[in-house]
Amino acid sequence: MNERSTLKIDEKGHLRIGGADALDLAARFGTPLYVMDEQYIRDMCAAYRTAIEEEYGGNGLVLYASKAFCCTAVYKIVQSEGVGADVVSGGELYTARRAGFPAEKIYLHGNNKLRRELEEAADYGVTVVADAYSELDMLDEICAEKGKILNVLLRVNPGVEAHTHHYIQTAKTDSKFGFSVEGGAAMDFARYALQKKHIALQGFHSHIGSQIFELHSFRLAADKLLSFMADVKNTLGFEAAQLNLGGGFGIWYTDEDAVQSVSDYAAGLKSILREVKEQAAAKGLRAPFLLVEPGRSVVGEAGVTLYTVGAVKDIPGVKKYAAVDGGMFANPRYALYQAKYTAVLAGRAREKATERVSIAGKCCESGDIVCADVQLPPARRGDILAVLSTGAYNYSMASNYNRNLVPPVVLVKDGQADYIVKPQSYEDLVRNDAVPARLR
Amino acid sequence: MNERSTLKIDEKGHLRIGGADALDLAARFGTPLYVMDEQYIRDMCAAYRTAIEEEYGGNGLVLYASKAFCCTAVYKIVQSEGVGADVVSGGELYTARRAGFPAEKIYLHGNNKLRRELEEAADYGVTVVADAYSELDMLDEICAEKGKILNVLLRVNPGVEAHTHHYIQTAKTDSKFGFSVEGGAAMDFARYALQKKHIALQGFHSHIGSQIFELHSFRLAADKLLSFMADVKNTLGFEAAQLNLGGGFGIWYTDEDAVQSVSDYAAGLKSILREVKEQAAAKGLRAPFLLVEPGRSVVGEAGVTLYTVGAVKDIPGVKKYAAVDGGMFANPRYALYQAKYTAVLAGRAREKATERVSIAGKCCESGDIVCADVQLPPARRGDILAVLSTGAYNYSMASNYNRNLVPPVVLVKDGQADYIVKPQSYEDLVRNDAVPARLR
Repeated sequence: MNERSTLKIDEKGHLRIGGADALDLAARFGTPLYVMDEQYIRDMCAAYRTAIEEEYGGNGLVLYASKAFCCTAVYKIVQSEGVGADVVSGGELYTARRAGFPAEKIYLHGNNKLRRELEEAADYGVTVVADAYSELDMLDEICAEKGKILNVLLRVNPGVEAHTHHYIQTAKTDSKFGFSVEGGAAMDFARYALQKKHIALQGFHSHIGSQIFELHSFRLAADKLLSFMADVKNTLGFEAAQLNLGGGFGIWYTDEDAVQSVSDYAAGLKSILREVKEQAAAKGLRAPFLLVEPGRSVVGEAGVTLYTVGAVKDIPGVKKYAAVDGGMFANPRYALYQAKYTAVLAGRAREKATERVSIAGKCCESGDIVCADVQLPPARRGDILAVLSTGAYNYSMASNYNRNLVPPVVLVKDGQADYIVKPQSYEDLVRNDAVPARLR
Repeated sequence: MNERSTLKIDEKGHLRIGGADALDLAARFGTPLYVMDEQYIRDMCAAYRTAIEEEYGGNGLVLYASKAFCCTAVYKIVQSEGVGADVVSGGELYTARRAGFPAEKIYLHGNNKLRRELEEAADYGVTVVADAYSELDMLDEICAEKGKILNVLLRVNPGVEAHTHHYIQTAKTDSKFGFSVEGGAAMDFARYALQKKHIALQGFHSHIGSQIFELHSFRLAADKLLSFMADVKNTLGFEAAQLNLGGGFGIWYTDEDAVQSVSDYAAGLKSILREVKEQAAAKGLRAPFLLVEPGRSVVGEAGVTLYTVGAVKDIPGVKKYAAVDGGMFANPRYALYQAKYTAVLAGRAREKATERVSIAGKCCESGDIVCADVQLPPARRGDILAVLSTGAYNYSMASNYNRNLVPPVVLVKDGQADYIVKPQSYEDLVRNDAVPARLR
C-alpha cells in the first residue's frame, strides 16, 4: 500500500487513517463506512495552489472537480485552501452555494446543461464552460432577460486523448464533449460565441482524459491549445485571457499504478505550467490565466472504505469469496469499469497475505463485486476490511440499488472523526414514495 | 417496437402509454420522467398467477422480484393481484411492510444478509432464503432469542447457468450465491440446516440467470433440483415442501429479442410447471409448493422513460450525438452492461428513422450514454425522446451521480397519471450533509 503520514499501519498491525484506528472508527460509526482524510485533501490542494504561485506567478486557479466527491464539508475544506470549484450540475452548484462558495471561483461544466441550470448559473454569476451552440443561445437569452453578462469558456478538443499510461492523437475526437480544433469546428464555435452580446468570452477549456500518468500528454494538449489560441487571435482578433486544462492526474489504486507523493503531483503540474509559459511566449501570446481541475487526485487517496466481512464461501477448485456489507450500491466502479483496488484487513494489516479472494458485495447480482482478486490473509466473518483509494467516485456514484442504504462519510483529522454525511435511514428510502388514491 | 393495447402510436404519431399521450405527460410532469403502465404490471401478475392455478392446481405462489423496481405503490399493485414479494434487503422489506404486504408472502434473499436484516425478517416473520452457514447460525440464534421458528429455504446451484439465448451446464457454479448440488456442497448445507432447532427448513431455491429466452434451461434446472430433492429425501429423510425456481424470463428491449405477449409468458411458465409435476411424480416426490420470481418481465416492458433532447452534436465523419436530460444517473445499464434499448421520438413516432445517433446523457463522463446507436428521425432540441422497456433496473439503479436528481415516477392507467415517486429536490441532496464544528 501507499503508506504515508496520514495513512499507515501501526505497531499493533492496525490501519490508521488521519490518526484514527480503523477498528475504532468501524466500532463507533458502523460499517460500511467511507472515511476521508482531511489532511491529505488539504495537502493536495495546497500543493497545486503553491505550484501555480511558484511556477506561474499565481496567475491561475485550482478548481476542485467536485464530481469526484461532493458534499457541503468538502467545499468548506477546499475553499479554505484557496481553491475554486468545478461543478457539473445544478445540484453541485446548489451544494457549493450552500457551503458559501464564492461565485467567482466556480466554473459550471456539462455537455448538456439544462435551462434551469444555466439560469441558476446566471443568478449566482459563475463562469460557464459552454459545450453547444444551443447553450450559447440560451445563455445569451437568459443573461439578456436578467440584465447580466456572464463569463464563458468554450470546451474544445485538441485531438489528444490520454488514458492511464498512454495517449493518442486524433484529428476529430469521438466525444459528446466539445468541438475539435482540427478541421475548424472549435474556431466556428468561438466565432459564434463572440457574436453574443450578453456573454463575455474568456477563453477555452479542454479535458483529455482520466487517471493519466503520462505528463507529456498534458504538455502536448497545452501546446495544441496555445496554437489554437494564436489562430483565434489571428483569425478573430480575440486573445483569450483564460486557459483551462481540465483534470486527469492519475492516482494509486494498486501496485500496477505509480506511487506519487503530494510533491510529485506539484512537480508534475509545474512541468505543465513551464510548458504553457514557454509556448505562450513562443507564439506571441500573453501567458493566460491558467486553470486546472484535479478531482480524483485531491480526494481519491484520501478515502478508505471500511466494510465488515460476512459470508465467506470457498468453492473448491473454483474461487474463494468473502462477502462484505457493501457492494455496487456503495462502489460501482468494479461493475462499471472492472476497477482494481487494494484491500487490507484493518486489524491484521501486517499479516502475510496468503490467499487470493474475491470481495463480493451484498447485492443480488453476480456482477456485484467490490474487488475481483485480492491477496489477503485468511479473511473471517467479522473482520474489518479496508479498501484503499476510494475517496473519488465512490460516495459520489453511490445508489440505493436493492434498496440498500448509502453509507455515511466521516472526516478524520488528528485522530478526530466527525460525520460529513450522516447515515441514511429506511425512511429516507421512501421519502418520495406516493400512493395514488385508487391504490389505497 | 412491441406495440400492444397499453403501448401504442396514435393517429397523430404520438406515443401513448396506458392511455396517456407521452407529450402530455412530459409537459405536465417534466422530464426526465419514468412512466409505468399499471395495466401491464397487473396483466403480467395475473398471467403468472393464473398459470399456476390452471396448470399446477394453485399449489404455488408468484413472488414479484422487487429489486427490478421497488416503491410502495408497486407492492400495493402486485399484492392486489394475489402475488407475493421477493425482497433482497432490509430496505425492500421495510418498503413492503410499509405497503402492508403480508409476511407470509414475503421471501428474503441475499448472499450476505446483515444481522439487522435477519432480525427484521424474524420480527416480521418472513421466509428467509439462506445462503451461508453463518446465516443459519445467526438466524437460529436470533430465533432462539425471540422465541420464534422461521421458515427457511436454501439457495443451491443446480449447475445450469442461463444467459439470454443459451445456457451452460457446470459442475460447480462460480458464484457468490448458493451451494453446488454436484459434489455434495448443497447436501451438506441441507444437513446443517436440519440440525438447527429454531428454523423450519421448507425446501430449496435456485436462480439460473437473467434475461433468459431458452425455456429448456428452466426445465433442465427443475429436473436437476427435483433429482437433488429426491437425493435429500433418501439421504437425510427430509422431503422438501417447497421449490423456488427463481426468476429470469427475458423481455423485449430491441428487435434482437423475441416479442412475447402476456400469454406467451404464461405458456412458458406452464411448460415449466408441467415438467415439475412430471419429474416429481417420476422421482417419487410430492409435487412441491412451487415459487417463481419474475421481476424484469413484470415491470420491464411496463416502463418508458421520457427525456427532452438538448444539445445535438454532429461530428462529421465520426458520429452524431443527441444529448438528453437524463444519463447514467437515471439509467446506468448501458454503462454497466452495454445494454441496448429502442428509442422513439414520442411526438413523431411514425416518422421514418433516417439517422443513426448515439443518445448521450448529461453526466461529465464519456461513457455516459443512454443508447449507443439507435435509428431515429432527425432529432431536434426540444423533442421528447422515449426509451422503451425501462421499467426494470432503471429507477431501482438510479443514483445522484454528478448530483443530478433522480427522476420521478408516474403510474398511468386508462389515461390517468399519478406520481408514485415524487421528484427529488436539491434539498434532498444535502439532507444528510453535516459540517463539523472545526470547518464552520
